[in-house]
Amino acid sequence: LKLKRYKKDLDYSYALGAFPTWELLDTHPQQVRRVLLHPRFNGDGALENKCQVLGIPAEYSEKAFNLLSDKENCYVICIYEKYSQTINAQRNHLILDTPSDRGNMGTVIRTAVGFGIRDIAIIGSGVDVCHPKVLRASMGAAFRLSAEYFPTFAAYWEKVGGPTRTCYPFMLDGARELSSLRQTNEPYSLIFGNEATGLPQEYNLVGTSLAIRHAHEIDSLNLPIAVAIALYHFSTLGGNGINSQKAARDPH
Amino acid sequence: LKLKRYKKDLDYSYALGAFPTWELLDTHPQQVRRVLLHPRFNGDGALENKCQVLGIPAEYSEKAFNLLSDKENCYVICIYEKYSQTINAQRNHLILDTPSDRGNMGTVIRTAVGFGIRDIAIIGSGVDVCHPKVLRASMGAAFRLSAEYFPTFAAYWEKVGGPTRTCYPFMLDGARELSSLRQTNEPYSLIFGNEATGLPQEYNLVGTSLAIRHAHEIDSLNLPIAVAIALYHFSTLGGNGINSQKAARDPH
Repeated sequence: LKLKRYKKDLDYSYALGAFPTWELLDTHPQQVRRVLLHPRFNGDGALENKCQVLGIPAEYSEKAFNLLSDKENCYVICIYEKYSQTINAQRNHLILDTPSDRGNMGTVIRTAVGFGIRDIAIIGSGVDVCHPKVLRASMGAAFRLSAEYFPTFAAYWEKVGGPTRTCYPFMLDGARELSSLRQTNEPYSLIFGNEATGLPQEYNLVGTSLAIRHAHEIDSLNLPIAVAIALYHFSTLGGNGINSQKAARDPH
Repeated sequence: LKLKRYKKDLDYSYALGAFPTWELLDTHPQQVRRVLLHPRFNGDGALENKCQVLGIPAEYSEKAFNLLSDKENCYVICIYEKYSQTINAQRNHLILDTPSDRGNMGTVIRTAVGFGIRDIAIIGSGVDVCHPKVLRASMGAAFRLSAEYFPTFAAYWEKVGGPTRTCYPFMLDGARELSSLRQTNEPYSLIFGNEATGLPQEYNLVGTSLAIRHAHEIDSLNLPIAVAIALYHFSTLGGNGINSQKAARDPH
């Protein structure tokens, strides 16, 4: 087995760290090719047992870690085959237009799963959600949702039923303040722009634009922060359906 | 002038990047010792003009950037004397118990300023808010608030009036769900624990503990995300005072 540094066009990727590896084994065991353990990996045997039960090879190797991980504290690598990810048009969605930062994407994914979102649409050229850095920043939550790429918002809109879907673009000069929204139709789509440039004005055409009002002393909220505030607020709204609300309210 | 890599016991620090430098010149010009520009700095002359008006030396130097910055895209360094930071006991506060990550601290500060918080108390041994990495992650917002260190929560509590202050510790098993809180007394303190360990149970004694309910598929929300959701929610509450609400609602 010859390992390569991750590139987008590989048909496999790497989950770095014990936590993301467990998430992958729990959610997509059939995709896992093998698990690599660092000689200093100090587990209680549970991970090796899990692999044995699933029939997945687990082996110690130091070399792979030098090649694949740039973090000091990574002692487990899980090699898995990428799988098809398509969104379910009946559910609530998070939409990101040309997101550019891998760490932000991972944080957004972790928060989205936390608030019951199972489907993310990425419009235009966005970061690769299978990149190990995204997977790691998501703490493995990336394996609990589907992220589908669309060349344009129009392509997404067509897939999900066009004008029948309730869309909320988030903009600095949005027409309504988020907190004034007290109920919503479902399924809905919450739409956020690129970290540096935000959403193009055309998005005003697809639904009521929302703003998260903040003091003028800062330029803007950062993307994962804005997404989190929006997802939390929507998780508390009265709606007309099931969808995210139930998941977000599960006591744990 | 002999520059040293930043350490906590220096009486000066470095703001890295043009944006944090502008924030520092706007908020604490009297603290600035000098501004260093990279030979590839491509400004419009405004920064040099500002320094000239303020009587602050601005000079080109490449060496300093190699020593002080590990980011490719840093073309301005502002050297400033640290200044005394004390919180104002009359205002709303954000409290962080032993926060450990510099990037998180910067993001938290940026969000706090965005929602009108001007005072942060750090309990126990937390990250150094004057560290260049914190300043940079805050996008310079760190210069717009005061962060004061207290050895224990008791020391903080004494300074701010003890039981007369309304405190909300945030805990995974908090007694109330955040969104059910519809009004609050002011001034209030929102309290968050360490990234990995959260708040010790003793914090239940200081006020009503709050939870941000999320799906069990994720272990927890990350710290800046939880803080942002809380600050936003409180910025929308009816209260009995002025404080953060006004700032957060200023249109911009």
